[in-house]
Amino acid sequence: MSKYAFGVDVGGTTVKLGLFNDKGQVLDKWEIPTVKDNGGEKVLPDIAASIKNKMQEKNISVEELVGVGIGAPGAVNADGYMVNGAVNIGWGAFDLAETLKKELDLPVTVKAGNDANVAALGEMWKGGGAGYKNLIMVTLGTGVGGGIIVGGKILTGSHGAGGEIGHLRVNPHETESCGCGGKGCLEQYASATGIVRLAKRKLEQETRNTILNRNDLSAKSVFDAVKADDSVAKEIAESFGNYLGRALANLAAVIDPSIFVIGGGGSKAGEILLEYVEKPFQENAFFANKDVRFALATLGNDAGICGAAKLVLDDFAE
Amino acid sequence: MSKYAFGVDVGGTTVKLGLFNDKGQVLDKWEIPTVKDNGGEKVLPDIAASIKNKMQEKNISVEELVGVGIGAPGAVNADGYMVNGAVNIGWGAFDLAETLKKELDLPVTVKAGNDANVAALGEMWKGGGAGYKNLIMVTLGTGVGGGIIVGGKILTGSHGAGGEIGHLRVNPHETESCGCGGKGCLEQYASATGIVRLAKRKLEQETRNTILNRNDLSAKSVFDAVKADDSVAKEIAESFGNYLGRALANLAAVIDPSIFVIGGGGSKAGEILLEYVEKPFQENAFFANKDVRFALATLGNDAGICGAAKLVLDDFAE
Repeated sequence: MSKYAFGVDVGGTTVKLGLFNDKGQVLDKWEIPTVKDNGGEKVLPDIAASIKNKMQEKNISVEELVGVGIGAPGAVNADGYMVNGAVNIGWGAFDLAETLKKELDLPVTVKAGNDANVAALGEMWKGGGAGYKNLIMVTLGTGVGGGIIVGGKILTGSHGAGGEIGHLRVNPHETESCGCGGKGCLEQYASATGIVRLAKRKLEQETRNTILNRNDLSAKSVFDAVKADDSVAKEIAESFGNYLGRALANLAAVIDPSIFVIGGGGSKAGEILLEYVEKPFQENAFFANKDVRFALATLGNDAGICGAAKLVLDDFAE
Repeated sequence: MSKYAFGVDVGGTTVKLGLFNDKGQVLDKWEIPTVKDNGGEKVLPDIAASIKNKMQEKNISVEELVGVGIGAPGAVNADGYMVNGAVNIGWGAFDLAETLKKELDLPVTVKAGNDANVAALGEMWKGGGAGYKNLIMVTLGTGVGGGIIVGGKILTGSHGAGGEIGHLRVNPHETESCGCGGKGCLEQYASATGIVRLAKRKLEQETRNTILNRNDLSAKSVFDAVKADDSVAKEIAESFGNYLGRALANLAAVIDPSIFVIGGGGSKAGEILLEYVEKPFQENAFFANKDVRFALATLGNDAGICGAAKLVLDDFAE
């Protein structure tokens, strides 16, 4: 008998859903809008209805369904409880896994996790980290997201806040505040937004010629200029790489991973970005960790649904 | 039927052994010398003989024995293999768990781990971290040792080098080298030795009166002077606390533990040391981690044998 699982990735605008078989193949994927009215009360009923429709459409019986995994943007503890809610969805603190299970009203496993952690699990399963069980994923977007996989499982932590790599304090001298209220957090320098911030600071005091345009800066434009051998852009990339590479060296000393997987919009610069991170990593890594590999994420927006499905397929495989 | 386990902690001078029942009670503990001749080839045969003698003495049958756990000073991977050997014992790289099992020649489980990691497991089981499953232990000795427990299990890592907290790089401006070859490692400031180093640096440029004697400095003498309200000593303690507290705030952001357990000779200063660490921790911790507890280790030199026994009792309990 075939076995199936659904993976769900809740975002602020759309909910992504995927249907997987127990061999890990994606059989179908689709999106529904995230209806945030009234504290996002429709989100889980909409997800449950969409899953039931798909089961009918594909002729999948309850007996064939292993379960449903869901990732959401906020801290989710090991019991599937959203500790502080999800401000982007309008949710307060509640039992995400249990509530989705009630909405589904099916005798199947439902598991929930933080979206960045779940994406890391997805990249371990089928993406840039395939073949490894100890992995750190770093997502360079508006912030720096993180997910830590230890022995093939998400490091969830006591408050569902494991892997908050973006809030490593890397600069005690910073004067501007991070979104978290702290100062000198990694994401102030190493997110896609942080690279732009480093570039702006650099250009304010730069007298040399550069192809960078201070009104049109992005992680991509900086690394495009690096590829064009622009000296100013190279120094910006070095500054970014120093912050991120040193932070990853410290992470390696405590987590001892086999591989770092770098994803998110900021990683679209490609392999050249990895070079700028690996050099300071090597210079600062503890000797036991110098052979840690670096790879780009490969699943893009599908990492979330893959990892969410893996949450329940993993249990099944055991 | 009663069930028993042995816990073994291999040190450079003595091997500590303990006999435990499955309720976690220590029934006996003793030491044998660590014979380091010929690459430490006698160490494991001596341990095996000592365990067999104890079984005879206590009338313990093979059927009653769950297994033997062993901690050793070096990286030990998840399979019980010593990745880089143990320079203090004279061992090269070898399969520690498998070799001890052969020496014992008994049909029981044998597990091995790094001594600092195993001590952390011991403190979780019966010590300062009892009642918690997500714990970070920090041992302030000649260096700064670390052990990370996630969901009740040791975070071993891909090379058996998980939890190497002492080699977090916390000061990019350091000019002196750490024992590991790097510069600016946490243990250069926060080990028992590191506190003395901070004190010496301070006293070299200090003109105020102080009860500290530059020829008789130790972590204890510094904190004794702090208790006597010595301003110079307080500033040394603040410097130590800033390095350690900030590093622990960064660890909390990625591991999300429930508790930090501080042990080792440097922690003999007592609760006052925790105060100097907790303040900078609070100032730098990510909001989700501000309620992490701090506690002193309570098992002292028994942490190793306790954690080693727990390695095999844990399996048994499952």
